[in-house]
Amino acid sequence: MSDKSHNELPIGVFDSGVGGLTVLKAIRETLPNENLVYLGDTARLPYGTKSPASIERYATQAAERLQQEGIKLLVVACNTASAVALGALRAALDPLPVVGVVEPGATAAVEARPGGRHLVLATEATVGLHAYRDAIAGRDAGAEVREKACEMLVALAEEGWSDGEIARAIVRRYLCEAGGARTDTIILGCTHFPLLIDTIRAVAAADAVLIDSASTTAGFVAAALETDGARRSGRSPGTLRLLATDGVTRFARVGGRFLGHGMSDRDVELIDL
Amino acid sequence: MSDKSHNELPIGVFDSGVGGLTVLKAIRETLPNENLVYLGDTARLPYGTKSPASIERYATQAAERLQQEGIKLLVVACNTASAVALGALRAALDPLPVVGVVEPGATAAVEARPGGRHLVLATEATVGLHAYRDAIAGRDAGAEVREKACEMLVALAEEGWSDGEIARAIVRRYLCEAGGARTDTIILGCTHFPLLIDTIRAVAAADAVLIDSASTTAGFVAAALETDGARRSGRSPGTLRLLATDGVTRFARVGGRFLGHGMSDRDVELIDL
Repeated sequence: MSDKSHNELPIGVFDSGVGGLTVLKAIRETLPNENLVYLGDTARLPYGTKSPASIERYATQAAERLQQEGIKLLVVACNTASAVALGALRAALDPLPVVGVVEPGATAAVEARPGGRHLVLATEATVGLHAYRDAIAGRDAGAEVREKACEMLVALAEEGWSDGEIARAIVRRYLCEAGGARTDTIILGCTHFPLLIDTIRAVAAADAVLIDSASTTAGFVAAALETDGARRSGRSPGTLRLLATDGVTRFARVGGRFLGHGMSDRDVELIDL
Repeated sequence: MSDKSHNELPIGVFDSGVGGLTVLKAIRETLPNENLVYLGDTARLPYGTKSPASIERYATQAAERLQQEGIKLLVVACNTASAVALGALRAALDPLPVVGVVEPGATAAVEARPGGRHLVLATEATVGLHAYRDAIAGRDAGAEVREKACEMLVALAEEGWSDGEIARAIVRRYLCEAGGARTDTIILGCTHFPLLIDTIRAVAAADAVLIDSASTTAGFVAAALETDGARRSGRSPGTLRLLATDGVTRFARVGGRFLGHGMSDRDVELIDL
């Protein structure tokens, strides 16, 4: 299917909050000509503490809203929603292609170190769901996976304290608690963690490969569009729309850190789901 | 009104999550014979990022549920709900006495240092509402108030990293950013922060008075019951019921830290609002 007007449609990116903006940023860097629309369901965050049934309902509502806006592919830029609701989203949005963040990260880790020892840093919710463990086991029976919940890293990223001695001390403690010195890869299994990649690299063993789910997901998106013949033609830079369901001011302030450039309230549209 | 069956009714304590358990703990220590019922609205936390209209609706639903269970006094152990919805709650529950956490903290600070310089450590939401600044200004026109959002302290308390070098470094940074060396009182304006009181005391100027909203609120509750003749008679220890609207396992695990003793899933009843 290669259809010019279809190919002009934006890629939809959905998260419970601002974290998925790291995925959006990676997609923009990989595919600068693509139009993008981002939806942060800030009224109902965090998804991680909700029941699977609620997460599935919220994610489906958000995704259907993006589908109504008109998109050519959906990225579920939220580890919890990817772990819980990917199947339900694919069924609800069929035939729209849906890409989650867990599969690209797991695939990249297995390709980087077949039969390797992997350490997944994630939120408590993602660790509890064992999404990366299962995705890696399904791709490499010889792999060994440890998962470590690192809630303080979320707070560090949102506070903008991504480097410096406090950030290093916190990362060091988590890696130490996880026995992190003995690992082949470190998978950033939370969309907030790419902001901390330099700090994690500084603290981790020199030979550990860092797997950034944001950039691996961007690669998956590029491949999916290529396969479908759905890349936007032309060389003009793609447009960007940002939607949030609550707290536009905070979204703009914290989100700017994740997107890598400042934004104001006026850059974010408040919507109701 | 002194009525034995009425006085047997529990005190209701309501928060958006586990933070209010520090207030519950202080009430238990002050009034060990009182029966208590706690409701954590974990399905809809955090309140801080929600709109005032949503916060008012959520808080009223939660409070009315406690009123249906039968309580003799309601404690709003949530700074955001106290700042946004105290008037609405008093109107909805009238004639039930309703005690928030902001007024006791503000009153204690003003009494400790009249005409003093006060530093409020709180969440971003409470700081944005200027609840303590306004409450202090209404009690002491000569007072000077600075407010500092300290989101990382919430994460520290929930992670159980309340002491040690990381906690001290984070507290030191916030106090430094707030110019904290020159302050007469430090008000713990978030229900999570009593867990960090020893660390804050170690880092703060030696002559700064620490105002713990949990214990000042417990004092207000004791005074209100005394005034109404509503203290439970008898010397048997009071009972405790814990209710949560989602995530009972996490509530039990994290909440144990706040309450000061371990609890299991079976100690928490899951309810729907």
